Amino acid sequence: MSNHHPEPGDLTLLVSQDGKHFLAKVEAGGSLHTHAGIVQHDDVLAAGWGARVNSHLDKPFTVLRPSIEEVLRTIKRNTQIMYPKEIGYILLKLSIVPGARVIEAGSGSGGLTIALARYATPGGHVYSYDVRPEHLAMALQNVELLGLDQSVTFHERDIESGFIEREVDALFLDVREPWLYLDSVQEALIGGGFFGSLVPTMNQVMRLAEALDRRPFAEVEICEITLRQYRTVPQRIRPLDRLAAHTGYLIFARSRFKGEPAEFNRERESRAAGRDRDRDR
Amino acid sequence: MSNHHPEPGDLTLLVSQDGKHFLAKVEAGGSLHTHAGIVQHDDVLAAGWGARVNSHLDKPFTVLRPSIEEVLRTIKRNTQIMYPKEIGYILLKLSIVPGARVIEAGSGSGGLTIALARYATPGGHVYSYDVRPEHLAMALQNVELLGLDQSVTFHERDIESGFIEREVDALFLDVREPWLYLDSVQEALIGGGFFGSLVPTMNQVMRLAEALDRRPFAEVEICEITLRQYRTVPQRIRPLDRLAAHTGYLIFARSRFKGEPAEFNRERESRAAGRDRDRDR
Amino acid sequence: MSNHHPEPGDLTLLVSQDGKHFLAKVEAGGSLHTHAGIVQHDDVLAAGWGARVNSHLDKPFTVLRPSIEEVLRTIKRNTQIMYPKEIGYILLKLSIVPGARVIEAGSGSGGLTIALARYATPGGHVYSYDVRPEHLAMALQNVELLGLDQSVTFHERDIESGFIEREVDALFLDVREPWLYLDSVQEALIGGGFFGSLVPTMNQVMRLAEALDRRPFAEVEICEITLRQYRTVPQRIRPLDRLAAHTGYLIFARSRFKGEPAEFNRERESRAAGRDRDRDR
Amino acid sequence: MSNHHPEPGDLTLLVSQDGKHFLAKVEAGGSLHTHAGIVQHDDVLAAGWGARVNSHLDKPFTVLRPSIEEVLRTIKRNTQIMYPKEIGYILLKLSIVPGARVIEAGSGSGGLTIALARYATPGGHVYSYDVRPEHLAMALQNVELLGLDQSVTFHERDIESGFIEREVDALFLDVREPWLYLDSVQEALIGGGFFGSLVPTMNQVMRLAEALDRRPFAEVEICEITLRQYRTVPQRIRPLDRLAAHTGYLIFARSRFKGEPAEFNRERESRAAGRDRDRDR
Repeated sequence: MSNHHPEPGDLTLLVSQDGKHFLAKVEAGGSLHTHAGIVQHDDVLAAGWGARVNSHLDKPFTVLRPSIEEVLRTIKRNTQIMYPKEIGYILLKLSIVPGARVIEAGSGSGGLTIALARYATPGGHVYSYDVRPEHLAMALQNVELLGLDQSVTFHERDIESGFIEREVDALFLDVREPWLYLDSVQEALIGGGFFGSLVPTMNQVMRLAEALDRRPFAEVEICEITLRQYRTVPQRIRPLDRLAAHTGYLIFARSRFKGEPAEFNRERESRAAGRDRDRDR
Repeated sequence: MSNHHPEPGDLTLLVSQDGKHFLAKVEAGGSLHTHAGIVQHDDVLAAGWGARVNSHLDKPFTVLRPSIEEVLRTIKRNTQIMYPKEIGYILLKLSIVPGARVIEAGSGSGGLTIALARYATPGGHVYSYDVRPEHLAMALQNVELLGLDQSVTFHERDIESGFIEREVDALFLDVREPWLYLDSVQEALIGGGFFGSLVPTMNQVMRLAEALDRRPFAEVEICEITLRQYRTVPQRIRPLDRLAAHTGYLIFARSRFKGEPAEFNRERESRAAGRDRDRDR
Repeated sequence: MSNHHPEPGDLTLLVSQDGKHFLAKVEAGGSLHTHAGIVQHDDVLAAGWGARVNSHLDKPFTVLRPSIEEVLRTIKRNTQIMYPKEIGYILLKLSIVPGARVIEAGSGSGGLTIALARYATPGGHVYSYDVRPEHLAMALQNVELLGLDQSVTFHERDIESGFIEREVDALFLDVREPWLYLDSVQEALIGGGFFGSLVPTMNQVMRLAEALDRRPFAEVEICEITLRQYRTVPQRIRPLDRLAAHTGYLIFARSRFKGEPAEFNRERESRAAGRDRDRDR
Repeated sequence: MSNHHPEPGDLTLLVSQDGKHFLAKVEAGGSLHTHAGIVQHDDVLAAGWGARVNSHLDKPFTVLRPSIEEVLRTIKRNTQIMYPKEIGYILLKLSIVPGARVIEAGSGSGGLTIALARYATPGGHVYSYDVRPEHLAMALQNVELLGLDQSVTFHERDIESGFIEREVDALFLDVREPWLYLDSVQEALIGGGFFGSLVPTMNQVMRLAEALDRRPFAEVEICEITLRQYRTVPQRIRPLDRLAAHTGYLIFARSRFKGEPAEFNRERESRAAGRDRDRDR
């Protein structure tokens, strides 16, 4: 990875002096139009990573290889997307490593799709379901921008009909009523496979927790992740005045072997409950 | 990855009915001694992933492939370690993908080392520095447990003498005074390379922010990540009574091309500061 | 209030050098037994507020007038109590000012009772209900310690039978199923009166929100308050490693005039909902 | 307090159906102009607390007695003001009860002034300092709106010249460099008196913590308070998408008796530090 210059076709992040981010595939003869002038791709290709180029208005831009985090923050979207704070944790909880086969539904704008595909490659694959063609089109566009289209298969399909793949390692649901699809989830997952979901409301958390509790799932975790960012001026370091307070609640579980009774799980949970202090009148 | 049974040598997670986690490399003829009895490895090897085995006391255990998150929570340690909530975000911010060459200091108990190596593999490599032999020994033991020893080189070396490698893609400092080593950081990083650090106190945040501000670094981010976990009993879903409030502040930056003046960075920062409301008397 | 010395009968806070807090009514001839020796009340009476006294083991203690916050943290309890972070906000939301007449149920250990009585005095009164004699005894003991017994009436009574008082200004429920008592709440509250409740689980939040929505209540607020404390050593300022993550969710509402239709409230709420972004598949 | 109707001169909160809040002193013959039409004060005076009145456009408004919290959210301001979440905690930490004599600087828009005066009354008094006439004018206007002008004395004076009052019970600094005034703080406070301050940046926290550490202050607390609000539609309860992340860090301390050596305090602090786990390389 450690070449010094962008090469034609490289995805490149250009940062203007006032901190605006532009993501572009640089090609000989191309150009990027910004609020601070036009940047010639040939100048970017000639500059080293980390160097500065100037627009035709003589405004400077820094040339950077985009991190996955920067890509996720910068890509086009037509739906709310998950943030890197959630996606990083999902990668570790679902153990998305090279070789992993993963299902997700829905595709949304492809933010999670990109991250899953980037970390399952080489050797793995992402199967991404959505019912809305406009979501699939946006997600495909973003996956192609990252050059990950060989690692993703999109299905325009309602998951009420179940999933097509079997014995996948992990499955993530970002849908309105995830509890409706848990039988299909268990059919698709390998024994012990990783399940995850994101839901924005308390009501959905309760419905999903109840549904998981009635089925052979283990290791249920419900959590939320908060990212608090600070102003970086050394003389005035302080939390930003406002923050994105809530993307959603994350719920994870492990699929148990078929035929294992749900009671096993429940028994353990109720013991755990006993350890936590109860409040009463 | 999708075989159905653990095979000899596989790292396996065994979960007891009261929720205790045991990490073991299962081998024919081996056994695991727990508070709930002895589990025979042969039973584990015969069980499917996600299935149940019983100890000699007839207590059930679930057999799971450990996620990276479960490994990070369960490995032995002799230092405070970073949590998955931080590590997942670090992976995305430092763009740790297959092929990445990464330096970290110190090695600590090897928690971050494992995650970096797992996600830089195949094709990448981690160079891990520590001055304490007991840390290096613990980190090596954990790296070997994951079978990642081919992907990590440990250096027993004080980083005051600088780093040995050059043109690495990313570099993470988990040391007491990271600001002392920023010249070495820039020598080791490729242009535009990813820098990150974790420090527990406000005082260290200020020292590091000042030092970054005087050097050609761009895209400085200071942040904290909070994980809030909930009780999962469906009838009583609520945040856990106590949570791990603070691991540390995370600071990230991008190395700029050598020779780029620091003023470029400062100018942008002071504009950003102007946008944020100032409080005064 | 500004006399310089404690007087006999004054509630006094003694702080040992290792930071332990002792609350005592100082009386001539009395003494306080601590892990750091015996402190003579006569020495405390002779010392000024803010001064130091020594125990018989020559260990120093600081003599302080206890703040309400210190009282709430230090009093004896046999139930989980609310924290000052919640109580301060409750005082402002329920507008507990001198002259206010307030009902609370249950009494618990009397933590909230003390705060309500202290701020409703002079001129106001607190009516505190509980079914458990041991709670009432503890709450009474704490109220007497603060010298507030003239401002509080305790009822050993199940609130299923309704409240005895009418036209109270504010009413707070810290009970397991607050939604069962909303008709009684409206009977007891004056028009426009202040209602508040604390519940620990999401399930209870939903039940109470539904019940409020079906009745003539306005200005419903659901919130949580977090207090994050920092280590104070100037060279190492940092958040405490662990914090009390969750006391409960607070719910507030205003009683509407009897006969006002609930639709008024619902209509407004659904508009507010439309302003907030919805996430979907 | 428990009369049923607003009376002429009463401060009244009118809430429109789309949730907008209007604060008005209702007078016979007066009127309130809103986006939803004109509301006649005579209609408000005729309505009961908690009842509904209609504007000339037939739009309904709810008539409520404003809580202190609603006043603090609704008053006019020309500076950033503190929020009820902080103010409630400050009241308990500084023990602002009837009879308390309190200094604050600066006056700002009078938000904290109102709360201090409301809770120190009857019998107490607030002395409020500011150097900017426009702040003092706004603060006075808000204090008069609440009818609290007999309980507040404003000083247009730079606190570099010290405070005029002596032996006050509590003192709060909301100024840019509070550490400059600690000698004056101790001169003004009674022995054991309550000190508090709000500062927005880490840099200020450190400067103030260092200055407190060098002087005879005890019981230093550094903290932050977060209020997380939820959407209240019963079918979709969830945290609001964005929240006010940061008002400032709160710092509290108790003035020690003059002549007590600062070492007393430092010794205790360093012991406390030893109990908290230190992170190192």
